[in-house]
Amino acid sequence: MSGSEFESLEKTLEKHIPDAELKEVKRILFGKETKKLALPACAVEAASARDFELQGYLFEASPEQLRPPRTVRVGLIQNHIVLPTDAPVLDQITALHKRIGDMVDVAAMCGVNIVCFQEAWTMPFAFCTREKEPWTEFAESAEEGYTTQFCQKLAKKYNLVVITPILEREEIHNVLWNTAVVISNSGSILGKTRKNHIPRVGDFNESTYYMEGNTGHRVFQTQFGKIAVNICYGRHHPLNWFMYGMNGAEIIFNPSATVGGLSEPMWSIEARNAAIANHCFTCGINRVGTEYFNNDFTSGDGRKAHKDLGHFYGSSYVAAPDGSRTPGLSRTRDGLMVTEMDLNLTRQITQAWSTFEFMTGRYEEYAEELTRATKHDFKPNIIRE
Amino acid sequence: MSGSEFESLEKTLEKHIPDAELKEVKRILFGKETKKLALPACAVEAASARDFELQGYLFEASPEQLRPPRTVRVGLIQNHIVLPTDAPVLDQITALHKRIGDMVDVAAMCGVNIVCFQEAWTMPFAFCTREKEPWTEFAESAEEGYTTQFCQKLAKKYNLVVITPILEREEIHNVLWNTAVVISNSGSILGKTRKNHIPRVGDFNESTYYMEGNTGHRVFQTQFGKIAVNICYGRHHPLNWFMYGMNGAEIIFNPSATVGGLSEPMWSIEARNAAIANHCFTCGINRVGTEYFNNDFTSGDGRKAHKDLGHFYGSSYVAAPDGSRTPGLSRTRDGLMVTEMDLNLTRQITQAWSTFEFMTGRYEEYAEELTRATKHDFKPNIIRE
Repeated sequence: MSGSEFESLEKTLEKHIPDAELKEVKRILFGKETKKLALPACAVEAASARDFELQGYLFEASPEQLRPPRTVRVGLIQNHIVLPTDAPVLDQITALHKRIGDMVDVAAMCGVNIVCFQEAWTMPFAFCTREKEPWTEFAESAEEGYTTQFCQKLAKKYNLVVITPILEREEIHNVLWNTAVVISNSGSILGKTRKNHIPRVGDFNESTYYMEGNTGHRVFQTQFGKIAVNICYGRHHPLNWFMYGMNGAEIIFNPSATVGGLSEPMWSIEARNAAIANHCFTCGINRVGTEYFNNDFTSGDGRKAHKDLGHFYGSSYVAAPDGSRTPGLSRTRDGLMVTEMDLNLTRQITQAWSTFEFMTGRYEEYAEELTRATKHDFKPNIIRE
Repeated sequence: MSGSEFESLEKTLEKHIPDAELKEVKRILFGKETKKLALPACAVEAASARDFELQGYLFEASPEQLRPPRTVRVGLIQNHIVLPTDAPVLDQITALHKRIGDMVDVAAMCGVNIVCFQEAWTMPFAFCTREKEPWTEFAESAEEGYTTQFCQKLAKKYNLVVITPILEREEIHNVLWNTAVVISNSGSILGKTRKNHIPRVGDFNESTYYMEGNTGHRVFQTQFGKIAVNICYGRHHPLNWFMYGMNGAEIIFNPSATVGGLSEPMWSIEARNAAIANHCFTCGINRVGTEYFNNDFTSGDGRKAHKDLGHFYGSSYVAAPDGSRTPGLSRTRDGLMVTEMDLNLTRQITQAWSTFEFMTGRYEEYAEELTRATKHDFKPNIIRE
């Protein structure tokens, strides 16, 4: 897993490339320049004191005659685990609550309306070990667990929507799920949404812990806009993003846990392609750091047994429907990305391109073709000489 | 349309960024390093004498015990128009035949098996003008036109498959289509495939010339692998790539005509995302240069009338299923990109990720959801407090 010490693509480009060329490089790589958002001094100071990166960006839309701007501030939080993976389970959870509470406090100073944490944020990403204990002890009830209660307090205290991705235990049947709970700014639970696609790649042995989600492609109507959550591996499936878009999502969050050697060159492609194709905002969030486990494990690739999954490369970012994007947060540090976006941009882009939507999408034909393609006796459309 | 003088993103990065950091920058931006392919000296000299860029790259797969490598060499050709847009129609076509013949000659020296030209390669991309004459005179029969006959000779002479995207006239009803004709290396016509999605964006007024294609998502079984053609605007529609993939395409070509101000930041995203998501190779081809027309036209955006559509930025490239990609050809020069790829990589990546395919794709559920979503009385799945 290379590059755990390389801090940031964007900073490297800025350090070395002269201004005139840098402008073209950034235009081609990142699209229309994303403006910086002025953040309050108290937030900048607090982030520095609490040792995390704070960035702010702004996506504007054109003024319209009949609709006022619909601006919303979104906060993405990426972080290391706090305690070693062999500390007592409740201590690990409590330490993460404390850390995230401190970061949300700064998000609130920045006027954030919706905050999203990384995938399975209350625990190390321990599924590489294939051990059931103690990792399943991190699972909580989505409705009544410590973490949901903690997030309800945050939501109410700061008047913000909280997206809290956890390992969920459905108590009745003792079933685990990879779930994001969405908590309204009123403090009540708006609902939950489960990870739709479960990986079987590299050390991502999640299919031995939980199954594909059964909550479909629901969209949550919050006071600040319509949001959806596409958890981690679902970002590799364009249909997953697409179906959230079809249900009206204006912002799709992608809380993730992924490592450099596996997915990093895809990281900047997939969520951004989804924003372009589904004319919505997308938010990729990835944890940071390397997590070490007590017991060795193997990876099914001939390598010797080892104790870590690799470097989680952070690089959380926001992509807009016009193809532009923010820089990524650090590859190595905890961070909070605050983005202000005018949701009117979504309809404006759909109209400009009249494209990725019903008008030119030909979705009825795809529904028919896909229905045929999923039959066991499907014959592909192949032309031979 | 900015940046018509900026030659290449990749060259700019290489010029300014020190080696150690450059390696990380390239890994994050472009994936696993793509090896250079050694090309014969006669080809290098001929390309130089004929004033076009020649690049060669190599995508390898792991050796397997039961399957030999399935290597194929693909050639992508991007070019300016040759004569001014007000030259006689047949002179313009003939000049382009000559130019492309010279470039295919070099492709053959490089051992290319499948060559693909840019969208509507026999003409200026004149649909911005909304004039029917003389532009519709460039339309030809896919089966018997000058250009198909010319390409059949090339195919036979050099033993290569030719993908030739033209403006097609279906004579019986005088219907125009934006079509790619696929010619076997035997010289016979394998078939044709029509552009599935027609833009209504900016000056891409193509919907006033031709309609959405009626050839579905067919895949052509050639001697060198299974190929499909997703013409231009179809690249913005993930479902279009996907359905070619579902029909078994191993290489999907995307012959295009697109300009900097509109689409350039999306160019490197969309075809590459399609390669990742559909575990196949994708080839983006875009024309180069600025084309001027005799009569002014307006763009529906408040700007004064003008004579050009903007700068076609070339930048043709190949993306691989493992998320890696070649550098782009020049933004300003004619060029031939030769890529050798081992098609065994497609199945290898599917297995490694066991992912974007049937195993984790949940396509039956998407077929149902999409079918519901296309009904006029569809109710989106929205959760409210």
